[in-house]
Amino acid sequence: MIKVGIAGASGYTGLELLRLLIKHPDVEITAVTSEKHQGQKLADVFPSFGGFSDLQFVSLSPAIADTCDILFLALPHTTAMNQVPAFLTGNCRVIDLSADYRLKSAEIFEEWYSVPHEQKEALSQAVYGLPEMHRDNIRSAKLVANPGCYPTSVTLAVAPLVKTGWVDLDTIIADCKSGVSGAGRKLATHTQFAECNEAVSAYGLATHRHTPEIEQEISALAGRDIRVTFSPHLMPMTRGMLSTIYINLKKDLELEALGKHYREYYKNEPFVRILNLGTFANTHHVAASNFCDIGLQIDSRNRRIILTSAIDNLVKGAAGQAVQNMNIMLGLDEKTALDSPGIFP
Amino acid sequence: MIKVGIAGASGYTGLELLRLLIKHPDVEITAVTSEKHQGQKLADVFPSFGGFSDLQFVSLSPAIADTCDILFLALPHTTAMNQVPAFLTGNCRVIDLSADYRLKSAEIFEEWYSVPHEQKEALSQAVYGLPEMHRDNIRSAKLVANPGCYPTSVTLAVAPLVKTGWVDLDTIIADCKSGVSGAGRKLATHTQFAECNEAVSAYGLATHRHTPEIEQEISALAGRDIRVTFSPHLMPMTRGMLSTIYINLKKDLELEALGKHYREYYKNEPFVRILNLGTFANTHHVAASNFCDIGLQIDSRNRRIILTSAIDNLVKGAAGQAVQNMNIMLGLDEKTALDSPGIFP
Amino acid sequence: MIKVGIAGASGYTGLELLRLLIKHPDVEITAVTSEKHQGQKLADVFPSFGGFSDLQFVSLSPAIADTCDILFLALPHTTAMNQVPAFLTGNCRVIDLSADYRLKSAEIFEEWYSVPHEQKEALSQAVYGLPEMHRDNIRSAKLVANPGCYPTSVTLAVAPLVKTGWVDLDTIIADCKSGVSGAGRKLATHTQFAECNEAVSAYGLATHRHTPEIEQEISALAGRDIRVTFSPHLMPMTRGMLSTIYINLKKDLELEALGKHYREYYKNEPFVRILNLGTFANTHHVAASNFCDIGLQIDSRNRRIILTSAIDNLVKGAAGQAVQNMNIMLGLDEKTALDSPGIFP
Amino acid sequence: MIKVGIAGASGYTGLELLRLLIKHPDVEITAVTSEKHQGQKLADVFPSFGGFSDLQFVSLSPAIADTCDILFLALPHTTAMNQVPAFLTGNCRVIDLSADYRLKSAEIFEEWYSVPHEQKEALSQAVYGLPEMHRDNIRSAKLVANPGCYPTSVTLAVAPLVKTGWVDLDTIIADCKSGVSGAGRKLATHTQFAECNEAVSAYGLATHRHTPEIEQEISALAGRDIRVTFSPHLMPMTRGMLSTIYINLKKDLELEALGKHYREYYKNEPFVRILNLGTFANTHHVAASNFCDIGLQIDSRNRRIILTSAIDNLVKGAAGQAVQNMNIMLGLDEKTALDSPGIFP
Repeated sequence: MIKVGIAGASGYTGLELLRLLIKHPDVEITAVTSEKHQGQKLADVFPSFGGFSDLQFVSLSPAIADTCDILFLALPHTTAMNQVPAFLTGNCRVIDLSADYRLKSAEIFEEWYSVPHEQKEALSQAVYGLPEMHRDNIRSAKLVANPGCYPTSVTLAVAPLVKTGWVDLDTIIADCKSGVSGAGRKLATHTQFAECNEAVSAYGLATHRHTPEIEQEISALAGRDIRVTFSPHLMPMTRGMLSTIYINLKKDLELEALGKHYREYYKNEPFVRILNLGTFANTHHVAASNFCDIGLQIDSRNRRIILTSAIDNLVKGAAGQAVQNMNIMLGLDEKTALDSPGIFP
Repeated sequence: MIKVGIAGASGYTGLELLRLLIKHPDVEITAVTSEKHQGQKLADVFPSFGGFSDLQFVSLSPAIADTCDILFLALPHTTAMNQVPAFLTGNCRVIDLSADYRLKSAEIFEEWYSVPHEQKEALSQAVYGLPEMHRDNIRSAKLVANPGCYPTSVTLAVAPLVKTGWVDLDTIIADCKSGVSGAGRKLATHTQFAECNEAVSAYGLATHRHTPEIEQEISALAGRDIRVTFSPHLMPMTRGMLSTIYINLKKDLELEALGKHYREYYKNEPFVRILNLGTFANTHHVAASNFCDIGLQIDSRNRRIILTSAIDNLVKGAAGQAVQNMNIMLGLDEKTALDSPGIFP
Repeated sequence: MIKVGIAGASGYTGLELLRLLIKHPDVEITAVTSEKHQGQKLADVFPSFGGFSDLQFVSLSPAIADTCDILFLALPHTTAMNQVPAFLTGNCRVIDLSADYRLKSAEIFEEWYSVPHEQKEALSQAVYGLPEMHRDNIRSAKLVANPGCYPTSVTLAVAPLVKTGWVDLDTIIADCKSGVSGAGRKLATHTQFAECNEAVSAYGLATHRHTPEIEQEISALAGRDIRVTFSPHLMPMTRGMLSTIYINLKKDLELEALGKHYREYYKNEPFVRILNLGTFANTHHVAASNFCDIGLQIDSRNRRIILTSAIDNLVKGAAGQAVQNMNIMLGLDEKTALDSPGIFP
Repeated sequence: MIKVGIAGASGYTGLELLRLLIKHPDVEITAVTSEKHQGQKLADVFPSFGGFSDLQFVSLSPAIADTCDILFLALPHTTAMNQVPAFLTGNCRVIDLSADYRLKSAEIFEEWYSVPHEQKEALSQAVYGLPEMHRDNIRSAKLVANPGCYPTSVTLAVAPLVKTGWVDLDTIIADCKSGVSGAGRKLATHTQFAECNEAVSAYGLATHRHTPEIEQEISALAGRDIRVTFSPHLMPMTRGMLSTIYINLKKDLELEALGKHYREYYKNEPFVRILNLGTFANTHHVAASNFCDIGLQIDSRNRRIILTSAIDNLVKGAAGQAVQNMNIMLGLDEKTALDSPGIFP
């Protein structure tokens, strides 16, 4: 059995890792950390795990790496950064679900996160963990930077278009809608039920930190710098993320041709589904699953492609993708523990 | 007291008209129609009105116009069309909340609604009831076509930009998010709780019938044909509509200048609020109120304006705007019965 | 104009007082306090009030009482207790929305709240502000203790039965369901959206502090000590409270007779509505209104009455009832600023 | 592989059977029926199944039984009744999720369902499929009547008390709260989003058809006729059911003793969890899982036990329990395809 540890296991991403890994046939969870709940049993704090585990939360320390083959870090952004090198000294491999190692450029990181990146060596080793784009590098990675939820949802939708020559890549607008769990479990006024229930709102327009992450991946594919307009919104639901993406066409295009291209592009991907033409993505259809559903439409009056892309922000947008990365790193069937349909209704 | 009738009073728009008009000091509701509930008392079918009214639903007939100074039509699209001329023969004035008389061009109507418009004379009389744009014509109108919720939300946000010369009007994209009540009270699978709860989805991309209505109003302001990309989405909440609108700048612009312009443009409008710079529109802040809140942002990296516009789809997006139109038609204070803050939380 | 102040105006109860009082024709709000937001404008922190008020939050000090005819205290339980006597020295009259002055017996207060009650003199002056039971005393009260939401909902439903002799008063069970706003605006894990959405749970079974408040009022009516089983539950909605109450019958009773009795008992009460026989209370029908809807049923197989009672916890369960009390204290029409139907849908 | 068919596969219970059975390692789904969707592919109608199945809906006919070892009937109440005997003629075994075969007494069925029960022979064969009470009979059953959601939740909570002598069995009151999916997928006004969102309401008080089912099971355990008061309520959430149950104690009892008894009673049951003393059941902790969580409390002031019992109405309350029954009937590990923690958050 492969030994795995989860640092920050009492946050929503950590809990989702637990839910998935507890049923993973090749894995044994050896440590779960939580500063807040250390000393308490997982199942006492989170009764949904009753009967599944006798794990007890411990405090995070570098020694955890000695007991794990794979260590998942589900810590707040900029918290994990300086701890990562210590975890990497032995045989342990790290999957970091924070944003700290996602941006290749320390400069761009510092520009958007307003803190210096002091682990440039570790940063240079990190592989961006979007399997559909970097599967080969993930296989042998010592450190995987698990993508953000918004970048996963947008990049998977846009990627097939980048090299077609059909679209003007300088016109990408991603209007994204996220469930509240994306904000994490730490207390905040704007995530209190009475504040965000019956409320749809925009936030971080033109300034959200997932912007450079999307740009990095699309630029890498395009072979030149691409900028996007990215607009996050908060939705009154727990899970789910829908991205609606607009890109100008450079020439007329038939929807059938677009559909054929997308199906071909993703024909070997187990977790990307291209929807029937005429139907659009719905977060409900991917709830609690690792799928990314992509819907296609052409606004021919305005010569524009409209993509819709739905994921569960906690699964394909975080914990599920991390498990997918782990499966790849370990040479397991990539679908292990992830191969379930969504919960509907 | 002014006598008003409501045709289709048991739908969500009709109920909202009732809620507002029951407290209107200058109005007496003389008739409410519902084919489904005819013969039943309003307060028996809808207990929220208990103690407020002894009204009984009746069947709709042309005679209703004889008993009203103002008749509100809250009937399904294309149902009211052929009944309107009969209502207009006497002294009664009509506010039609359906889409039947909103489009000036019968051809465009037929193109998007796939039915012929057979009341061209009445159509030529109709005034589009967006007070912020057509107040003077509304005053004396015999027939007011009350705007759709999406067009209200988008047009109010975009209007101040049209004549500035700052933006490229051929780049307008409106990504709109609506609560479920916008779909009305008739039964449908996709509006069942278990279907749309915990679900965010797109629908009608590139084909929704509110597109030509938005285009008509913006084109009229611009003095030339403008086309927009309009994308409606369904949100898991009862009330509220948020539109996020993208328009390319033709030159650099400071946010402060944009804010100043919007405040000046709407300085005399009682129901349009320009939000503090740096804050964005939230449907929760306009719930059950007649306000349209507009937030401003400039994505300077991409030289693009991002507008956010929030309304309650049943109030400023339907019944509230209809009452505002009535107040104008009758020479009353435009704010009568509408001058309340939103319900928060 | 009557001058009113609101201490703790940035909590949910305080905000609801603001919403109601801003539209009250006889009232001028002279001061709003918030330690957290002092120095900020109300409308900047809570945009729903944009255009309605230039008020600025100040810090609470005893001097506030000098500027008000009526001071509302919407402070956390046990916070206000020792400040109240200072507010009462001048002409100011106080409506305290906390629990500190609701229980007549300092001993019982100390037993349930685990803190001593050190203001016994003020306590002896306090009138329990349930208008339907204590209207005459409220009229002249210097200090009104505004009832809790659960006690309001349960007491109004049970009161008509107490003196009938029909029921065994020692068998009262109140199973109550509350929206999340009842927990207030302070941050807590269990009121975060992702925790309480899609969740129904019980809390405080057999130990909740509203128990003695319910018992005090029913006992006073009965003329002897009555104990009740009271079970609160948290519901995934913002506003609303439904109480389902079980009481054993001592003899057979017809539902019609029960209905007649309830209608007679409350025939002069403007905010209690007895529902049609065969229909049950629904929080949706009283949303944002000051009504208490009571539904009646007899389980004749088990010789038991089942009452359902619905209020909006923030209105009749808090701020609305406080305004009702103010109207009574000032000799105004009791319905002023409260006479609106609920928001449906 | 065992061949199973699902009649009525496009309802919520049918879809949940599909979700569970598609991942069941010993089962092959050979037929899914839906009158509404016949001829359509499962994954076209319900995109959550995309990639998991090529099944196509067919119309229901008696021949379906020839192709199945196990046939699940997820049909509306009283629809399946007369079809069942035809399905039983061959080797096929039937698990009926309707109410038609749950009540042993045709008379009681007719009294509560107002239709005659015309299949008395089949009825006499039916085994009530609550594994915790009838596991041995289920093993060899030809026809299993899968319990209702409310009866499952209430009976599992009450059963351990029946033979203790501690309680007065004539005082049972079950106040139950259900998510909206329990009402099924057929269209109805009261299950439309805008109607039941932000709404908590009671329905069917003293008359709901699950009453005799609860009484049958508790009476069987008690060895005499027991009557209960059962009150269902509708909650604004998709899945989940919480039952709060009140029973008078005949003598004082310590909570620790109660806890010990419950743990002992259910020590071998894989899907019943007794919560830590001092904590109460929460539907969120069992979401999408087959668990029944039971919380215990004693109201010693009133000498009353208060039980809380949480299930997912579509899993342990319907489809999950049906799969559990199938596993038992087939001699498989009872937990197969059901052994997952709930989805939290």
